[in-house]
Amino acid sequence: MNAATVMARCAALDVHTEVPGTITRRYATPALAGALREVEGWMREAGLETRRDAVGNLVGRYAGTVAGAPALLTGSHLDSVPDGGRYDGPLGVLSALSVVERLAARGERLAFPIDVCAFADEESVRYGTTYLGSSALAGRFDAEWLERRDQDGVALRDAMTAFGADADGVAEAALAPRSVLAWIELHIEQGPRLERADVPLGVVTGIQAQERRRIIVTGTAGHAGTTPMDGRRDALAAAAELVLAVERAGRDTNGIVATVGTLSVEPGGINVIPGRATFTIDVRHPDDDTLAAALTEFDAAVTRVAGERRVEVLQTVLSADRAVPCDEGLRAVLAAAVRARSLPVIDLASGAGHDAAALHRLCPVAMLFLRCAGGVSHNPAESIEECDVAVALDVLEHAFRNLPPGARR
Amino acid sequence: MNAATVMARCAALDVHTEVPGTITRRYATPALAGALREVEGWMREAGLETRRDAVGNLVGRYAGTVAGAPALLTGSHLDSVPDGGRYDGPLGVLSALSVVERLAARGERLAFPIDVCAFADEESVRYGTTYLGSSALAGRFDAEWLERRDQDGVALRDAMTAFGADADGVAEAALAPRSVLAWIELHIEQGPRLERADVPLGVVTGIQAQERRRIIVTGTAGHAGTTPMDGRRDALAAAAELVLAVERAGRDTNGIVATVGTLSVEPGGINVIPGRATFTIDVRHPDDDTLAAALTEFDAAVTRVAGERRVEVLQTVLSADRAVPCDEGLRAVLAAAVRARSLPVIDLASGAGHDAAALHRLCPVAMLFLRCAGGVSHNPAESIEECDVAVALDVLEHAFRNLPPGARR
Repeated sequence: MNAATVMARCAALDVHTEVPGTITRRYATPALAGALREVEGWMREAGLETRRDAVGNLVGRYAGTVAGAPALLTGSHLDSVPDGGRYDGPLGVLSALSVVERLAARGERLAFPIDVCAFADEESVRYGTTYLGSSALAGRFDAEWLERRDQDGVALRDAMTAFGADADGVAEAALAPRSVLAWIELHIEQGPRLERADVPLGVVTGIQAQERRRIIVTGTAGHAGTTPMDGRRDALAAAAELVLAVERAGRDTNGIVATVGTLSVEPGGINVIPGRATFTIDVRHPDDDTLAAALTEFDAAVTRVAGERRVEVLQTVLSADRAVPCDEGLRAVLAAAVRARSLPVIDLASGAGHDAAALHRLCPVAMLFLRCAGGVSHNPAESIEECDVAVALDVLEHAFRNLPPGARR
Repeated sequence: MNAATVMARCAALDVHTEVPGTITRRYATPALAGALREVEGWMREAGLETRRDAVGNLVGRYAGTVAGAPALLTGSHLDSVPDGGRYDGPLGVLSALSVVERLAARGERLAFPIDVCAFADEESVRYGTTYLGSSALAGRFDAEWLERRDQDGVALRDAMTAFGADADGVAEAALAPRSVLAWIELHIEQGPRLERADVPLGVVTGIQAQERRRIIVTGTAGHAGTTPMDGRRDALAAAAELVLAVERAGRDTNGIVATVGTLSVEPGGINVIPGRATFTIDVRHPDDDTLAAALTEFDAAVTRVAGERRVEVLQTVLSADRAVPCDEGLRAVLAAAVRARSLPVIDLASGAGHDAAALHRLCPVAMLFLRCAGGVSHNPAESIEECDVAVALDVLEHAFRNLPPGARR
């Protein structure tokens, strides 16, 4: 199996979308279920033994030759952000499957089993969780998430039931550390550095620290025509100041990225002063302490705005992930595989979060980045080259064959 | 019939709501249909001849003694903002009905017919129109509104059909100016001035000029973790600056009120830089030129933000209403009625828009304001006193009896 097949399969998943004409595939939707079914079919054709776990992750196993050997986990996720791109997630799943298909075509097995993972939720845009799918494998699924509600008021627990998952069985999805050798994932870079360096692949050094919060600003609703400006407690105006404070916290410190991606207003009438504004923040930096300092700067802005505007500001931390270093030994294996293809080794820190951030609690993790056009991601314009995928398949296969037996910590 | 009945009927309409536990009654919803049916029942019990026009307004006629005499129009609206109050609208409808019931109880008729109007849409929060209900009577209904869509994508035309209204018959709802004597409306003040003056009623001098716009900011969506701060074209951050510019335009000029009541973000993922932000502005002042100057100040901010942030900003004027003076003759009649009740005459400009702004194209208009607790409106805490309503019923009846035959312009 080759890169053309990987490209074609990524494209074939486009039809599994919540919003026709876009790629929108959030957790526990019929669109995601369709994508999982399709990939499950390809896995079975390749002779993998497939299973679904309690959160709906799909795992296809290619058996090894040594009985009881811990498994190599590899793959990525099949969910997407709203109106996202074709390769963020599916590339890693389908490349891993393609490498296994090469082995199977030659009737070749490695010492250890290979588990190709297609996680049901990594973007976590529906419930504001983080790495919902891989967290379950890592035994890090937070049971409190089950009561969270999406924007339509559907609780996660109920969404899982409708999806055929098992909210009460999540604990059983956790893998025993002794059963897992490592996690290796191929993912698009989602940044411009490989393109600028004119190199198809990079070896990831680690995943940056990241904190997400929900912020609710409460003021007083009132009539837009009769409430004088100086008598107002306008929740949206206060939120607007905080949106700019988030941006400033990002601009003030080199390497910080800080984003307000969602904001909603209540009551939401054209002639009603907003009584409540709810938004989220997402702030990241490769270093834990630098991230904490930026958030402290934001907290100071919250205190100031709440005081000046006489509004209440309630902050809830949705997730707080410390920086995750990739495993030195696995990085060396990936670097050797890159050199074996006569390519320079580019080391890259990951700007985005990935399932490795959840899985490093379970096993050593490593990642390979593939260049994407303009660094564009989370966007329909996401684009990669087939010839780069061909290189990635060679590098992955080389790395799989050369995993040290001592990859386990 | 008395003030207690008016209070009880206002309360009885609470159950007609889209969202139980709140008062939310937007145009062409089952909740509004329920309120209209209930009021129609009370009108018929009082012996009024009722009809519905093409946009769904309810009119109950109490006949006069002179054949062909132009009718006094009176009443208000039954729709509400989301999570609004009990009296904004219904008070005017049910007080007008109560005055007619007094006349009917005595078997008394005036020279002219009295048309008690219950408009189906004044707040216009669902379609961003203005005075949709009374505009139809005034022959000012804009046929382009029919293609507008609400937040669920339902076109006004389709909403009207589902409501039993007649989108293609709207032109026929227009009244002939010669058939109308005047428009007189009782409404809660929605401001604090009468309460501060310790007086139950005020005579409205006019309705302020008002402009509403929809503003769409388009930047570039991108990954929140991998797009450096200096490479961003964040639509929400740009919108946040403009929200604060609207507020500043209001604060800079005495008497201006300027509000951003709605704002939404696309794609709307917690980890996606917003590519688009859409919001509305509502700016008002009693003087046309002062309003125009404030909007010019805002336009300058738009130009600056669009340039600095390299985003596109598209402004669409949803409505632009010039200041509307109340009729001098009708104001004198109302003032005399207030004095006849041994009360001081308080002249007030209306901070809010009202149906009179649409109807003054059809006939002379006048309004009476009733004090409300704390000036609070568009809010569940809206509150009035029954004793004030009793005064208002006396004043309205006195005014109706003393309308000059020459009230028509």
